[in-house]
Amino acid sequence: MKYPVLPFVARPDDPFEAAWVDALRRAMPAETIEPIGRLDEAALQACEVAIVANPRPEDLRRMPRLKWVQSVWAGVERMVADLRDTDLKIVRLVDPQLSDTMAEAVLAWTLYLHRDMPKYASQQRQRQWKPLEYVRPQDKTVSLLGLGALGAAAAARLRANAFRVQGWSRTLRTLPGVTCYAGDDGLARMLADTDILVCLLPLTEQTRGLLNDVTFSQLGRPACLINFGRGAIVDDEALRRVLEGGGLRHAVLDVFATEPLPMDSWHWTHPAVTVLPHVSAPTDQATASAIVAANVAAFRRIGAIPPHVDRIRGY
Amino acid sequence: MKYPVLPFVARPDDPFEAAWVDALRRAMPAETIEPIGRLDEAALQACEVAIVANPRPEDLRRMPRLKWVQSVWAGVERMVADLRDTDLKIVRLVDPQLSDTMAEAVLAWTLYLHRDMPKYASQQRQRQWKPLEYVRPQDKTVSLLGLGALGAAAAARLRANAFRVQGWSRTLRTLPGVTCYAGDDGLARMLADTDILVCLLPLTEQTRGLLNDVTFSQLGRPACLINFGRGAIVDDEALRRVLEGGGLRHAVLDVFATEPLPMDSWHWTHPAVTVLPHVSAPTDQATASAIVAANVAAFRRIGAIPPHVDRIRGY
Repeated sequence: MKYPVLPFVARPDDPFEAAWVDALRRAMPAETIEPIGRLDEAALQACEVAIVANPRPEDLRRMPRLKWVQSVWAGVERMVADLRDTDLKIVRLVDPQLSDTMAEAVLAWTLYLHRDMPKYASQQRQRQWKPLEYVRPQDKTVSLLGLGALGAAAAARLRANAFRVQGWSRTLRTLPGVTCYAGDDGLARMLADTDILVCLLPLTEQTRGLLNDVTFSQLGRPACLINFGRGAIVDDEALRRVLEGGGLRHAVLDVFATEPLPMDSWHWTHPAVTVLPHVSAPTDQATASAIVAANVAAFRRIGAIPPHVDRIRGY
Repeated sequence: MKYPVLPFVARPDDPFEAAWVDALRRAMPAETIEPIGRLDEAALQACEVAIVANPRPEDLRRMPRLKWVQSVWAGVERMVADLRDTDLKIVRLVDPQLSDTMAEAVLAWTLYLHRDMPKYASQQRQRQWKPLEYVRPQDKTVSLLGLGALGAAAAARLRANAFRVQGWSRTLRTLPGVTCYAGDDGLARMLADTDILVCLLPLTEQTRGLLNDVTFSQLGRPACLINFGRGAIVDDEALRRVLEGGGLRHAVLDVFATEPLPMDSWHWTHPAVTVLPHVSAPTDQATASAIVAANVAAFRRIGAIPPHVDRIRGY
């Protein structure tokens, strides 16, 4: 049996479109995969499922029989907002390799802060030979915002490297060796005892602007921030104030309200900010395509749609 | 029974002398511990053991009955050279906490290179938003020079974080999950397949200048270097040449032939060099004092001298 064409829907300027189509074709030899731009009206009419990478909503509306879309991205908040008025089901990419890579990123930049790399870089520029006090990881508290698949993997990796680990989530979780919190009260209590705060939250109505003047003021001592979640979770002006005021010693930012980060943004040149171009956990196209292939195969065989985004929660 | 005074012998300019005496006194309440400068001739005559931190040899020669010294440093090559004409026994600090801290440093700066942090810092200075290709740790080979207590701990930590790990030592070792090499031939074979080369060797006649034009030329592809061993293991001019020639992409240097690194050294400003002020594995005074206390107690009780440096091997 020959299936209808399976479209790949990216933005017209997506530099990775060809590489994705290639990886997906290798993972699904039984499917006919084409960029949506190559499909005629008849093909579009037949589509019940599409593979998407942050698509334009108008492209999805060209497929009237579309039941669900499989994202190759883990973060789908833009799509959820764009498609609020439809009942299209959105399946996020849940890739164990992605959790591994994100856990590695959390550990890498936690160690970057723990080992004072930004300060040693600044001392090098001044030709200053000055050992700084070393505090053992057993005496440092890393607090995670978000304890889903990514947060749980990050917590385990930090624990294995001897850090004290706390975590906060919408509903209270239990994780081995991790002090868990939930709710506004729980957030305040966690922030009171934090050396490094790591944000792995999805962007929802509840998390937008969660890190603001009020929550930054709940930090019990000068701390550092790592944002690997979404830019809009941080109130940018509050961040600037708490960096200037010394409440935050350093911020590692991989995500921004506008990406690419505009040329005139203050972040680029702030001495206490490390700017990264959204690289904490790049998707591995080979492993992601294998997961997408399994989801598509189950749908073709028995019509099963994988677990999808809860439109109320937003993830 | 009251023991003879136990002297602490540091260099006159050692800023940590008071802190050491304090930590040692807390760990050994039955001993009378004093900086050597406070001792009179009679006290010096009575000493059979001393605790030392990179001491001046002339200070040790003031104690004619001295049998052994306990170093609070792991690296004792200067003392070994200075005391070549005596049969004084030198006991290095072997502190499991030190191995942990060094393993953490190896992982931290391996991740620093693995995650292209120097390149992202340079892109930030140019306001450049440009994700670089991510290679999984499973596809990167970290090669360790030195497989003693520090090397073994570092290898285990790197393995736990999914890197491919190789190691080289004077005599062939066996470590789980680590491809092991020995000898000149083994070194050449290991270098041929190396992405990140980590030096944890002690300085001996055999290791001085080990990384030179010949060994650098054995690298099979552009690699990175981390030197946490001793500065003189690297031929500095050969290092400069291989960095300029592209055979090495970046060097993280924590140790130098002369420390503090002289102000006019080329290392400070080279874009492909990260300079650290000898901070990879700072001794933890509390845990080190507890280990020293156990060694001293065994000597006081039954005259046992702990395993000491082999003057021929040099470590």
